[in-house]
Amino acid sequence: MSNYKDNDGGKRGLDALSSLCKRRGFIFPSSEIYGGINGFWDYGPMGAELKRNIRDAWWRFMVQDREDVVGLDATIIMHPRVWQASGHASGFADPMVDCKDCKKRYRADQLCEEQGAKLVQKDGGWELPEGVKCLQCGSANLTEPRSFNLMFKTHVGPVEDESSATYLRPETAQAIFTQFLNIYATSRRSVPFGVAQSGKSFRNEINPRNYTFRSREFEQMELEFFIRPDEAVELIYGHVVTMADNPDLDGEPQQDWGWEVWHRYWVEQRLKWYRSIGLPSEALHLYWQKGDELAHYARACVDIEYEFPFGVQELEGIAARSDFDLSQHQKFSGKSMEVFDDHLKAAVSAMDEGAKQMFEQRTVSACILRGKSLDEAKAFCAGLFEGRYVPHVIEPSAGTDRLALAILCNAYDEETLTDSKGKPDVRTVMRLHPAIAPIKAAVLPLVKNRPELYAKAREIYKLLRKEWNCFWDESGAIGRRYRRQDEVGTPFCVTVDFETLDDDTVTVRRRDSMEQERVQVSSLVSWIGAAVRT
Amino acid sequence: MSNYKDNDGGKRGLDALSSLCKRRGFIFPSSEIYGGINGFWDYGPMGAELKRNIRDAWWRFMVQDREDVVGLDATIIMHPRVWQASGHASGFADPMVDCKDCKKRYRADQLCEEQGAKLVQKDGGWELPEGVKCLQCGSANLTEPRSFNLMFKTHVGPVEDESSATYLRPETAQAIFTQFLNIYATSRRSVPFGVAQSGKSFRNEINPRNYTFRSREFEQMELEFFIRPDEAVELIYGHVVTMADNPDLDGEPQQDWGWEVWHRYWVEQRLKWYRSIGLPSEALHLYWQKGDELAHYARACVDIEYEFPFGVQELEGIAARSDFDLSQHQKFSGKSMEVFDDHLKAAVSAMDEGAKQMFEQRTVSACILRGKSLDEAKAFCAGLFEGRYVPHVIEPSAGTDRLALAILCNAYDEETLTDSKGKPDVRTVMRLHPAIAPIKAAVLPLVKNRPELYAKAREIYKLLRKEWNCFWDESGAIGRRYRRQDEVGTPFCVTVDFETLDDDTVTVRRRDSMEQERVQVSSLVSWIGAAVRT
Repeated sequence: MSNYKDNDGGKRGLDALSSLCKRRGFIFPSSEIYGGINGFWDYGPMGAELKRNIRDAWWRFMVQDREDVVGLDATIIMHPRVWQASGHASGFADPMVDCKDCKKRYRADQLCEEQGAKLVQKDGGWELPEGVKCLQCGSANLTEPRSFNLMFKTHVGPVEDESSATYLRPETAQAIFTQFLNIYATSRRSVPFGVAQSGKSFRNEINPRNYTFRSREFEQMELEFFIRPDEAVELIYGHVVTMADNPDLDGEPQQDWGWEVWHRYWVEQRLKWYRSIGLPSEALHLYWQKGDELAHYARACVDIEYEFPFGVQELEGIAARSDFDLSQHQKFSGKSMEVFDDHLKAAVSAMDEGAKQMFEQRTVSACILRGKSLDEAKAFCAGLFEGRYVPHVIEPSAGTDRLALAILCNAYDEETLTDSKGKPDVRTVMRLHPAIAPIKAAVLPLVKNRPELYAKAREIYKLLRKEWNCFWDESGAIGRRYRRQDEVGTPFCVTVDFETLDDDTVTVRRRDSMEQERVQVSSLVSWIGAAVRT
Repeated sequence: MSNYKDNDGGKRGLDALSSLCKRRGFIFPSSEIYGGINGFWDYGPMGAELKRNIRDAWWRFMVQDREDVVGLDATIIMHPRVWQASGHASGFADPMVDCKDCKKRYRADQLCEEQGAKLVQKDGGWELPEGVKCLQCGSANLTEPRSFNLMFKTHVGPVEDESSATYLRPETAQAIFTQFLNIYATSRRSVPFGVAQSGKSFRNEINPRNYTFRSREFEQMELEFFIRPDEAVELIYGHVVTMADNPDLDGEPQQDWGWEVWHRYWVEQRLKWYRSIGLPSEALHLYWQKGDELAHYARACVDIEYEFPFGVQELEGIAARSDFDLSQHQKFSGKSMEVFDDHLKAAVSAMDEGAKQMFEQRTVSACILRGKSLDEAKAFCAGLFEGRYVPHVIEPSAGTDRLALAILCNAYDEETLTDSKGKPDVRTVMRLHPAIAPIKAAVLPLVKNRPELYAKAREIYKLLRKEWNCFWDESGAIGRRYRRQDEVGTPFCVTVDFETLDDDTVTVRRRDSMEQERVQVSSLVSWIGAAVRT
């Protein structure tokens, strides 16, 4: 559909796109009149609508259309203990190096990568491999890589000292864990169920880059989907469904699924959603993190990646995080994060002592193999026998801005047509999926100076505007007006002409094919409505 | 409608409301498992949907339903020069005092007010009046009031010094001014037009209080509506419509309106919107700021206030801010914020020299009376004669969280009914306007154990869920299920019973009157749809 990647090896295509984004009000550099601020981007009139549509489509798919997910809208600034529990306070850091000669600063791993090398991990720190140089001045006189915490720090209250210091959240997820008990107690949902949140996060990136892809302020759409530990599933159902059982991931989720199936289910759901808003399957890739790339608590993590002009990069990570997060908050807050599960309690009540002992033996060994202590393993079993456990979690975590960028990249097209004089004529068109296009329809009176026609066009415009964001354009030749809408991705142009006055039909011109058809005014809302739903 | 204010002098009613908000998932203290963080609140599943609905209703009314407003979605962290230009870096401060004995800290003006006194302004600073004491320990041994800047500070990039310091925005408005040139150049709108934005802002309040009303992290919904200076209107139309001309504020805005009419127009629009989402006229008050309360550049400012249980407090300020904001950014950025106005240029071209001289004389005098220098006044006239000016602005600026609180306060009701045994029975009901209620309809199968009835109920639930956020509840007596929905403000309960299987009708029970009526399943979507639109 898009020839975006044809015209560049990355850079050139991004330049054409960012120029259109600036010119047509999708994306502006933040604070541009003051020289900008590196890593911060504003969304103009078109971009603000695009992002609204992405957010809304995500919420509809992840919350409204499901029975097992509820929403949350938490603060960006939270208690600093949250970041100690999550590990961000100590571990959320990037390696930083400076050129001692020209003073240019780099993220050490990126500097190495760009020279075909790999940063060396050593004694909990880092070391630059032989031969890595400053990209600006060519000097090899670089500092040792040192750790830089990526959280933005601030102080709450009038006293500015360590006791009042806290951070802007680097992810929205932790608020979900922090509010887990409140949500569980009030939402009348039982495990398995999920909590979704969308909002701003902040990371003080050393080198923001690739247009809006790696920004310091960005938006996330995250789901924490809480499931039973496999051991509880086994106790309740006598078995645990794994991928080897070839479960139907397209149908309704099943109670006897183990974590592995839930994880794959969410990968499939997320892919389905990306396709539903217009990203083609062939541009989406799955990257399964390998054993040594996984965090120690993670059982699996898949990245959904998109072919950006600057390379294949992550849109979303879908991690099976075990009970790590809730257990950390349990430890740091002293509040029990266990849920009580009626089904589990009932199942255990029906077991005889021998079966329980066998289960415990097997489970304790398995837990120890996964790195738990004997005491922890025994306490886990004791909890299960009382119907209690800390839920495990599957986390599909998407970046809204990088998705917006992927969508813009995918939509951008320069199509070479032949004009009426037989000359080549390049049409720039944003082939956005109608569901997320900022403007759904433009209404164009063929001429301005016929009051009856003009009034009819205004009437139609007002009719459509009740339903969607629409645009009125009365100035210039009709062909030029079409092209203006092509550039912002408006899927339909509705032209009101003399025929309209006779038979109450309008010309609807489709953005992608440029085909035109006559549509009855009375059926226009349902005609467009059918096309703009995902 | 609501008896909320009957049962308290403020405090008690707020306690009942906040208890319901916690219990039913509207509002939780942020980071509660770590003891909370003062001035920060999270919105649970119900609150998140309520806020989404408020935001969406605002956007529909202010952007989508209008031709003359576009949106913006800018960053929270901006270049620090923005806050120098806006005046926040030097002037956005509250007076702070400490008790030297018990160390309790106060906002000086609030401390005075609570003792029936008024903080004294003196030499650009403040002084406590005689007799003001610490509310905690009663000591009069208080520090002098000193200035405390309310902006949260942080550092961008890896170096933490003054050159990298910046702030979390204390209002969303400044981003609109900062991006004015980009939006004007790309949106194909001409003055008068507006730019709307909704998003988080941060103020490091000394004393957050009154539940969510005064929070440190909060959300705003702001419009900057740019208009011609009255002098330009006069040059173009030969007159300027003022309130003395009794303009029709309900109809379409007119090009010959002066700032005074535009200001009143927006006051009326905003009141109309508050009424459309269920706030009653009698609970809304207008407070016109008096001459000495107005900022020096402001021509008028009206607060829309609501009768909260803790007093009448501001929901929204609507200010006529002249060209102050754009002029400040012009001065600090060195970028011209003038627009070129074809109509003005054409009008001036048709004037003779005598008329221009008379106009200039009159305008220069008026400008000087308003505090401009002779040079500034002359430059302003010279610009007008070339068709150029810096637009003036009307700013309706609303707080999303305080509006959510007003809506919750207004909706909360305890209604005393008589139960089947003749005993009094208190029904707690949130009388939320259907358009902003978190759940639009609950679907309740009368019984669980009839597969045919159950399946029919599921079918209806899935039908409604495609349209709105709906809730499925199959457990407990039907009366209890109704009451649960009453507490979260669900306007309609749809009960599927044996009759449904015969004639394809359901019982729809209305939350407010508790009246029930039979509705055809085939017309259910349009029946509910009509009620949930503003």
